[in-house]
Amino acid sequence: MTAQLNRRILLASRPVGDIKDSNFKSESVPVPEAGPGQILVRNLYLSLDPAIRGWMNDADSYIEPIAVGGVMRGGTVGIVVASNAPDYSVGDHVFGMGGWQDFAVHGPEGMPNKLPEGTGLPWTNFLSVLGITGLTAYFGLLDIADPKPGETVVVSTAAGAVGSIVGQIAKIKGCRVVGIAGADDKCKWIVDDLGFDAAINYKTQDVAKELRKACPNKIDVYFDNVGGDILNTVLGMINIHARISICGAITQYNATAPVPGPSNYLTLLTKRSTMQGFVVLDYQARFMEGIMQISQWLMQGKIKHREDIVDGLENAPKAMHKLFNGTNTGKLIVKIADA
Amino acid sequence: MTAQLNRRILLASRPVGDIKDSNFKSESVPVPEAGPGQILVRNLYLSLDPAIRGWMNDADSYIEPIAVGGVMRGGTVGIVVASNAPDYSVGDHVFGMGGWQDFAVHGPEGMPNKLPEGTGLPWTNFLSVLGITGLTAYFGLLDIADPKPGETVVVSTAAGAVGSIVGQIAKIKGCRVVGIAGADDKCKWIVDDLGFDAAINYKTQDVAKELRKACPNKIDVYFDNVGGDILNTVLGMINIHARISICGAITQYNATAPVPGPSNYLTLLTKRSTMQGFVVLDYQARFMEGIMQISQWLMQGKIKHREDIVDGLENAPKAMHKLFNGTNTGKLIVKIADA
Repeated sequence: MTAQLNRRILLASRPVGDIKDSNFKSESVPVPEAGPGQILVRNLYLSLDPAIRGWMNDADSYIEPIAVGGVMRGGTVGIVVASNAPDYSVGDHVFGMGGWQDFAVHGPEGMPNKLPEGTGLPWTNFLSVLGITGLTAYFGLLDIADPKPGETVVVSTAAGAVGSIVGQIAKIKGCRVVGIAGADDKCKWIVDDLGFDAAINYKTQDVAKELRKACPNKIDVYFDNVGGDILNTVLGMINIHARISICGAITQYNATAPVPGPSNYLTLLTKRSTMQGFVVLDYQARFMEGIMQISQWLMQGKIKHREDIVDGLENAPKAMHKLFNGTNTGKLIVKIADA
Repeated sequence: MTAQLNRRILLASRPVGDIKDSNFKSESVPVPEAGPGQILVRNLYLSLDPAIRGWMNDADSYIEPIAVGGVMRGGTVGIVVASNAPDYSVGDHVFGMGGWQDFAVHGPEGMPNKLPEGTGLPWTNFLSVLGITGLTAYFGLLDIADPKPGETVVVSTAAGAVGSIVGQIAKIKGCRVVGIAGADDKCKWIVDDLGFDAAINYKTQDVAKELRKACPNKIDVYFDNVGGDILNTVLGMINIHARISICGAITQYNATAPVPGPSNYLTLLTKRSTMQGFVVLDYQARFMEGIMQISQWLMQGKIKHREDIVDGLENAPKAMHKLFNGTNTGKLIVKIADA
């Protein structure tokens, strides 16, 4: 290796409420070396996701919190630059949890996934529509909620990276799809470009009233990324045997006090319905199935998607805010180095 | 028929909050006659259940509200006194929704179920452990939550008609069972007589603290009849793949303002867990399976139960209060006439 340095961004302190600059710390250290059975990967692209906010808390969750003083966790696409592992060659592109840094050592356990070369698709797609984002939409909608033709599916954060794909998959499945988003241009995009049947701007419209109009047959499936009032409103409008897929709760991640739960949860009883949470990492064994199916839909033009690419690892902390203040459209990705 | 009268208790007005005497009205009318295909049944016993409180509201639910001016709805065991239906003979005992009255006409649709004669069991058992109550416990626990040997099952209203059977079935299935009840003698009963592993008095003890002690391996299954703070506390202590069976929410039935929902619902995501409501009437096709299995357990002495029998139809309105003020133990039944 040359005397190159490894820039990395650490968790300096756990945020209370909104993320602040002081929660992060940057440093440059020598590039690590690949030990026996390991590979060294140069990270090219970093995925920024709402879930990262949860990992910054010292809370019992589905994954260990990021340690204070540790490198920020995140999914990455990178290129192998040194390999002591038989199945990986220099030049291979891989997807893994490379973190907020220029270089990552992987292995011998938890090796990253090799990505197919020569597909013609931009590498960023493996962090968006063909990555965890697309897979979250795929399994969270189809495995948890299993929508049937003619059913009404409501999606929150509908113009977001996950929500926009959820809605399009629901359309492919023959459902009536209503999206909730936070800006008129987002609402226009999901209806005009993505084919949603209706969209509601929760910032300017009365969500309950608009949902009643947009869902004349009430709601069979709700894919929730926000929690809070909207979840509660939807619970008040579900049909018998409705399925609510809990993917996230943006309204809670930065909260400093408990957010009220859905007081309408008892419709789960009166409507014999189910509210189920999921974590996409549990579907690892079926990722290939999801990627194959989504690729096919992509090639058939049945799924469209957008990426919001921020240049420079050093801009990752600031870019995180975009996930919570409604300013990003499409999958948020940080470009660390040229592919 | 003789010039006998049919006493009946009507819903005079919809209650706001707690039930009041003025919500009921009594009247005596001529005994109705059985038309073509119908039967006339003399009601012997009336089941009083928390669900009736819900039917008194003008709310969208799993069943039509009781009409103002209509006869109060309720499950009954009765005896056929006149029959124009080929499968029913005078003297047959039947279970059906006979309502709060001396006589009911059934049919030709929605005929009541004939009960087996000569079992030696009191007829009241078909309103309690072998009735909707026992079936609610059976399907709500086994079908919705499917507890596995070694798992920890928590039950609220554990000394109640449903909860006490839920806990005993969970013990039969090899689970660790923790009950939550509202009086020391109830707690003593479920542990000493019913074999629960532990009991918590939510009125005098710190539920969160006691649950942590009583559930060293956390909670896999929760059978909920109360909602409110206890549901929220349990959600904060669930294991991965936990199942929460929503049977009812006593804390909500008399509420005049929305009861806060469970702010911890997001553990459904982090723990990939499910919260599912059910209505026992959906299992009608499988009632015989449930009754057979529970009878067997009863005969083997594996299930014990108590009945709280109030004498006289005229006392039904007052008796309803016992379901909400914690003073009844065992299944609440009103005796209308001698068997």
